[in-house]
Amino acid sequence: MSITAELDRGAVEQIVREIVLKSVNGRPPIEPNLIVSISARHCHLTDEHVEVLFGAGHTLTEMKDLYQDGFYAAKETVMIVGPRRRMLPSVRILGPTRPASQVELAFTDAISLGIDVPVRRSGDIDNTPGCVVVGPAGVVELKQGVIRAERHVHMNQQDAAYYGVQNGDRMSLAIESSCGVVFRDLLVRADETSKLEVHIDTDEGNAADLENATKCELIKQ
Amino acid sequence: MSITAELDRGAVEQIVREIVLKSVNGRPPIEPNLIVSISARHCHLTDEHVEVLFGAGHTLTEMKDLYQDGFYAAKETVMIVGPRRRMLPSVRILGPTRPASQVELAFTDAISLGIDVPVRRSGDIDNTPGCVVVGPAGVVELKQGVIRAERHVHMNQQDAAYYGVQNGDRMSLAIESSCGVVFRDLLVRADETSKLEVHIDTDEGNAADLENATKCELIKQ
Repeated sequence: MSITAELDRGAVEQIVREIVLKSVNGRPPIEPNLIVSISARHCHLTDEHVEVLFGAGHTLTEMKDLYQDGFYAAKETVMIVGPRRRMLPSVRILGPTRPASQVELAFTDAISLGIDVPVRRSGDIDNTPGCVVVGPAGVVELKQGVIRAERHVHMNQQDAAYYGVQNGDRMSLAIESSCGVVFRDLLVRADETSKLEVHIDTDEGNAADLENATKCELIKQ
Repeated sequence: MSITAELDRGAVEQIVREIVLKSVNGRPPIEPNLIVSISARHCHLTDEHVEVLFGAGHTLTEMKDLYQDGFYAAKETVMIVGPRRRMLPSVRILGPTRPASQVELAFTDAISLGIDVPVRRSGDIDNTPGCVVVGPAGVVELKQGVIRAERHVHMNQQDAAYYGVQNGDRMSLAIESSCGVVFRDLLVRADETSKLEVHIDTDEGNAADLENATKCELIKQ
């Protein structure tokens, strides 16, 4: 008797039904390739602030492409100074420029500067603390814009369908390592073009020893 | 009809049985008072190293009692210097002194020093990296002893019975906050006298925003 003959018709139909139900836009539900990235402290600047800090007419110089298309780490860095004149000497600028300048720190960084930093999604900077940004050609005093970026996961709509989530939902990220952690409440940032990528900060990456992780899994909450 | 009369005898017996089964040494199973503490970077020193660093005959000065009886933060601090002459200027010494000197760092600290630090339980320092320790009266070159302390929970045997765990087991710690985290695989360190207390490091505490946590729960894995 062949193996095929042993399968009963109902069981086969059930398997087919599950595959069809799980398929997305007619494509089979292949597990997306999950990238988990650590965002070290960095800042985003306006065109105007780039010119104040680096000189009239200056534009950012691309040093290294980020995983998300169109974004890059710039060659330029700035000094970030906190309210008690403590400072971080060399904070990377990420490009391209933005409509508002923003500094993203881990809590460890913020504590070292003496800034009580709120957890915010990128761009949501109303009523956040400020800092002083020092470049080789000038200084900018930011009245607001210092945040700890809320942990989040970028994805496109096909990934969102795979996981059964929508933009704005929350997911968990399980990291297996010698320091295993489950991070709760990652914000889902789904759009048409993003690649599947989790962003956590250095405190989170170090807490979980992400560098030596054996498995990372996104889980619908 | 009174409420009591509505309870059937079997249900009452079941409730009583559960209470009796859960009781520990005849005492009712009251949930222990869980303390979660962040251990910032610190070091433990031998008597000999205290004298080299602070002068002949010097002993540590108690500054602040720790939660565990008999342990304290000393007034004295040392400078820790890494292999590339990067340093942490002021690292607290915890007392009392020990048979072997040991430096406990978060990964963020170790990375800033340029030390690739292993995750170890306290005291397990064979084949770990060393560092230079600088005090006001002298210098010690530690050949080994720099670790990231493995996250762990101290408890006494009654707490262990409450949670159904034994010394050496692993538990999870769930922290609810704006940055909720489940830390996996906390080492249980159970003995006769310890108070129930979780020790995590600054990376872990900051990753979970422990300071603003609304709930912390120990869970048997």
